[in-house]
Amino acid sequence: MVAMVRAFLGVCVYLCACRVRTSHVPPRMNKTIQNLLQLYKIPFKERFNGRPVFSRELLGTKMEARDMLMSAVLRTYEELLGNMLERLSDSATPTPGGPVTSGAGDRDPAPGVDARAELSYLLRRVQDLRKYRYQAQEKLLDGLHNLRHVQTDNLVVQSKALWELPWLYEEASSLAEGGRERRRRRQTSRRVARKP
Amino acid sequence: MVAMVRAFLGVCVYLCACRVRTSHVPPRMNKTIQNLLQLYKIPFKERFNGRPVFSRELLGTKMEARDMLMSAVLRTYEELLGNMLERLSDSATPTPGGPVTSGAGDRDPAPGVDARAELSYLLRRVQDLRKYRYQAQEKLLDGLHNLRHVQTDNLVVQSKALWELPWLYEEASSLAEGGRERRRRRQTSRRVARKP
Repeated sequence: MVAMVRAFLGVCVYLCACRVRTSHVPPRMNKTIQNLLQLYKIPFKERFNGRPVFSRELLGTKMEARDMLMSAVLRTYEELLGNMLERLSDSATPTPGGPVTSGAGDRDPAPGVDARAELSYLLRRVQDLRKYRYQAQEKLLDGLHNLRHVQTDNLVVQSKALWELPWLYEEASSLAEGGRERRRRRQTSRRVARKP
Repeated sequence: MVAMVRAFLGVCVYLCACRVRTSHVPPRMNKTIQNLLQLYKIPFKERFNGRPVFSRELLGTKMEARDMLMSAVLRTYEELLGNMLERLSDSATPTPGGPVTSGAGDRDPAPGVDARAELSYLLRRVQDLRKYRYQAQEKLLDGLHNLRHVQTDNLVVQSKALWELPWLYEEASSLAEGGRERRRRRQTSRRVARKP
């Protein structure tokens, strides 16, 4: 009972703080979340077990999106080269054995080409690049991947996510506003640069 | 036959150009790719059909990774709120019906709370934010998602990906180097700022 009262007071303090600090979360939204949290109750210990649904650390990252995309491209290359090697293992000859599409059936083994050695070499280069230069991006990719597996039909997750919504909504709105501001500044500087 | 000769000459010109232009792709790697392309032959028309395996436009994007991650968080919220609404439709009462965990079974419907209306309102707010402020990020997320579905066991895809590798490897190496340079500059400026 004491824990419940503490949790409720916690909600009130948190939501009041949000209301004062933020400008993007309208009062109705705060009130709605407050109402719903009464309905989607979970024990205090579960709410504050140190495992939020959405990691603030992940969202606070400083990195360019294309670095993350490039990391995903390298992952795809590893899979692709791995598949090509596997296909070679399946067949007795060193020719590629992927599904043949129209007009692709006229290939002969190139003389003197050791496909396995060549593919293994390329795979090592790609693996090394990803392993030594794209570690931070890997972590983000995993974080992004985990978002697709959030247990959205679990009551504890639902309640915690409701609790985290004011901060995230505020953050998402601010980020979007920041992005628009950056674009506007870029456009202005381009226009200024164009003027004689 | 003419097409094949043209394709081969194209490969040579492209790889020679890469060798001159780039510094991160070692000659052995270029040679390896050249050898493998003789083995993983596809018709000229298929190679240059305007649909590369890895979109250069996608990789040329200017955006922060956290904007992309935030877009994914909003997607997850939509799914979560949608699930909560669906669960309400399944039950006769307006109480949440998610899987109950330890200590979470003591919830009663809060008096005067229309869970459906409240959840619908929150869902609309999240949907609107994502729809009007996170369109570009959505496109990138889709691009990233598509990378997980590249047909890595298809010969045409394998051949095209081999062909695209020198540019991508060069780009990935340059990006990683650029990232290290940015981090080094940040650390230096922090050290300078700390000095009295």
